Amino acid sequence: MSDDQLDAFRRSIDDVDAALVRLLAERFRITQEIGVYKAAHEMPPEDPVRQHQKVDGLRQLAAEEGLDPDFCEKFLHFVMDEVIRNHVRIAESNS
Amino acid sequence: MSDDQLDAFRRSIDDVDAALVRLLAERFRITQEIGVYKAAHEMPPEDPVRQHQKVDGLRQLAAEEGLDPDFCEKFLHFVMDEVIRNHVRIAESNS
Repeated sequence: MSDDQLDAFRRSIDDVDAALVRLLAERFRITQEIGVYKAAHEMPPEDPVRQHQKVDGLRQLAAEEGLDPDFCEKFLHFVMDEVIRNHVRIAESNS
Repeated sequence: MSDDQLDAFRRSIDDVDAALVRLLAERFRITQEIGVYKAAHEMPPEDPVRQHQKVDGLRQLAAEEGLDPDFCEKFLHFVMDEVIRNHVRIAESNS
């Protein structure tokens, strides 16, 4: 099940996926710094108000970009849950 | 729990998140085209060999970029599961 048209689609997907992985790596580098900063200042790892605002704003961006806002929200929770696990680990290793 | 340093970190995160949402929208636009193409050519929605290769390649990229390869793999399955649900829907609406 391979042909030129499908191969061209797949090259585009591969480029997008590589960019997504690099951006996720960048995101976790920043949230790692935030985790260290919050732990040093004894701030809680979670900030529900900020998370709620983020979800709302990115659902709206998703809709503008033609991405299913529900999928976008699931994706954000998927990423933010991992961030919180990391922050808890940092806080625990500091205590 | 707001200060200048935390605000700067958060602006960076917001920029990365907007880029992630735009890339995901782009990815689903391409996979939507692939879904239509596969349905028209009566190809199966899934391609396990291709998926396996993708996961391996992106785990390696993740490791190079400092992203947890296990998280990267979970992310890919999260996205690919949604793609397959969409492809099945396209195939069903064509049959």
